[in-house]
Amino acid sequence: MSRILTGIQATGRPHLGNILGAIEPALALSASQPAPSFFFIANLHTLTAVKDASTLQENTLEVAAAWLACGLDTRKDVFYRQSAIPEVTELTWYLNCCTPFPMLANAHSFKDKSAHLAEVNAGLFTYPVLMAADILLYQADVVPVGKDQKQHLEMTRDIASAFNRAFGETLVLPEARISEAVMTIPGIDGRKMSKSYNNYLNIFEEEKALRKRVMQIVTDSTPVEAPKNPDTCNVMAIYRLVAPATDVAALEARYRSGGMGYGEAKQALFEALLTRFATARERYAELKKDPAQIIHQLEEGEARAREIAHGMLDRVRKAIGFA
Amino acid sequence: MSRILTGIQATGRPHLGNILGAIEPALALSASQPAPSFFFIANLHTLTAVKDASTLQENTLEVAAAWLACGLDTRKDVFYRQSAIPEVTELTWYLNCCTPFPMLANAHSFKDKSAHLAEVNAGLFTYPVLMAADILLYQADVVPVGKDQKQHLEMTRDIASAFNRAFGETLVLPEARISEAVMTIPGIDGRKMSKSYNNYLNIFEEEKALRKRVMQIVTDSTPVEAPKNPDTCNVMAIYRLVAPATDVAALEARYRSGGMGYGEAKQALFEALLTRFATARERYAELKKDPAQIIHQLEEGEARAREIAHGMLDRVRKAIGFA
Repeated sequence: MSRILTGIQATGRPHLGNILGAIEPALALSASQPAPSFFFIANLHTLTAVKDASTLQENTLEVAAAWLACGLDTRKDVFYRQSAIPEVTELTWYLNCCTPFPMLANAHSFKDKSAHLAEVNAGLFTYPVLMAADILLYQADVVPVGKDQKQHLEMTRDIASAFNRAFGETLVLPEARISEAVMTIPGIDGRKMSKSYNNYLNIFEEEKALRKRVMQIVTDSTPVEAPKNPDTCNVMAIYRLVAPATDVAALEARYRSGGMGYGEAKQALFEALLTRFATARERYAELKKDPAQIIHQLEEGEARAREIAHGMLDRVRKAIGFA
Repeated sequence: MSRILTGIQATGRPHLGNILGAIEPALALSASQPAPSFFFIANLHTLTAVKDASTLQENTLEVAAAWLACGLDTRKDVFYRQSAIPEVTELTWYLNCCTPFPMLANAHSFKDKSAHLAEVNAGLFTYPVLMAADILLYQADVVPVGKDQKQHLEMTRDIASAFNRAFGETLVLPEARISEAVMTIPGIDGRKMSKSYNNYLNIFEEEKALRKRVMQIVTDSTPVEAPKNPDTCNVMAIYRLVAPATDVAALEARYRSGGMGYGEAKQALFEALLTRFATARERYAELKKDPAQIIHQLEEGEARAREIAHGMLDRVRKAIGFA
């Protein structure tokens, strides 16, 4: 039986790219397992970048609402805010003492930043150790990550091994399950959908705003009458990801036959988005009206997470001689 | 009203040099203040160097027994193990996120180690941040430190300022009280008394072992009959620090007049040590017979420390948006 653990960046309301590329695959993987999975909002990590209380709080609510709206089932899975189980920072200190400085200094993620050292804080530098503590505290054995996170998983194993060598077998070494096929979702300009490119679709927006945004998708200037290439069109690229296969085939045929403007294709995409995410949109709107309900579900998860964290930390403290 | 905070390295049983140079001055400073002082056994810091559960536990008991034997009054002062208030590691994470990497990389204490980076762990690298958290969690305003620690105090002020700039005025900036006159206590070979030179006197030892050690003090080969120079003698250097002024004057006179061997001077030093530390030796022996009594006194202090730590951490969490 595997315990899957997934950290969720608390950097704001997830967009379509996040939902299709990360949230839905993570929820599908979890649903395939009988054991509860662990999903946490990594707001201690976020603190390395965001330094504003109301932004941090709002981001947390947005992100929690989105995951719940997309189907995270808190009756089965454990959903919690990282900051609500501060025991993870205690484990981080113990692990810090077993992490060689060069391991952190040679990490890709740090080297990428080494030209701007003044902007790197000690939290960012020791980020991989907090990540290791996140995993080891809950004895997760499967951590689905993208290729870019593979090194951090290897560091987690190295740090856990170093701890076990020093203090005796205590920590469980996790396996990385690399999500090779992390889907890259195209944005409205054809580049990867990303907050930093401001080319994303926000499926939780009001219909009017969402429609307006869909209409902004960049297309070429082929006239209405002319046949169009569905394989190079940004509208079609997104439509394929959200519409049923028969609808996709039908729209592709209309592209090729000509006589359809891009506006019509965009309208089809807009409607497909509303259909595909009808339940999620409805749930999201309800949750946003009742933030106490979000907090309540998180608190329930936090009680479950805390119990496991305490048990693990007790064993760690005993191994060190602090209990 | 000042709150004084002193961290105590948990590296083993304190020797005469520690007692005269650090423990007694710290206790005297604390006694001069009506407010309770904070004394903590810095075993989280020790973990950066020591990785053995039984050593860590034994060191903690030894060090606690020595401070209590020397007069630490737990009815007034707050005496606790750093590891018993793990909230300090939570504050450390928040402060990490406000500490520029170059501040740590440029610290003297780190630069001294930069030739042996593979042996430096992340705990040692971020040591000054944990030290800042130790101070700021208890809102200590006076931290007596030696000159070598002055930079760490300045870093604490810088880190606290950075936090306050980011999240609003929350943390109290401490003043460093530099103990300019940190006494250097000579060891049995005339060099500074130090564990690493193995030239120390352990005043908590059995009489026989203590006497044997005193007899090992290095002296010159002046014959018994000849006058001796009390100003260059290792025995006299220690005697001056532990015997009453009249006895010191009398022994100096006997040095100058000749007819006294070094063995006699050593015997006088041995007896002076027994007299000076009679109460401490007795208390120490009692405490060592009853470790539960040591733990009990620590636990009482930890309850007081925890209450203050919780109050402070609540304010910090509110400022960040985590409460």
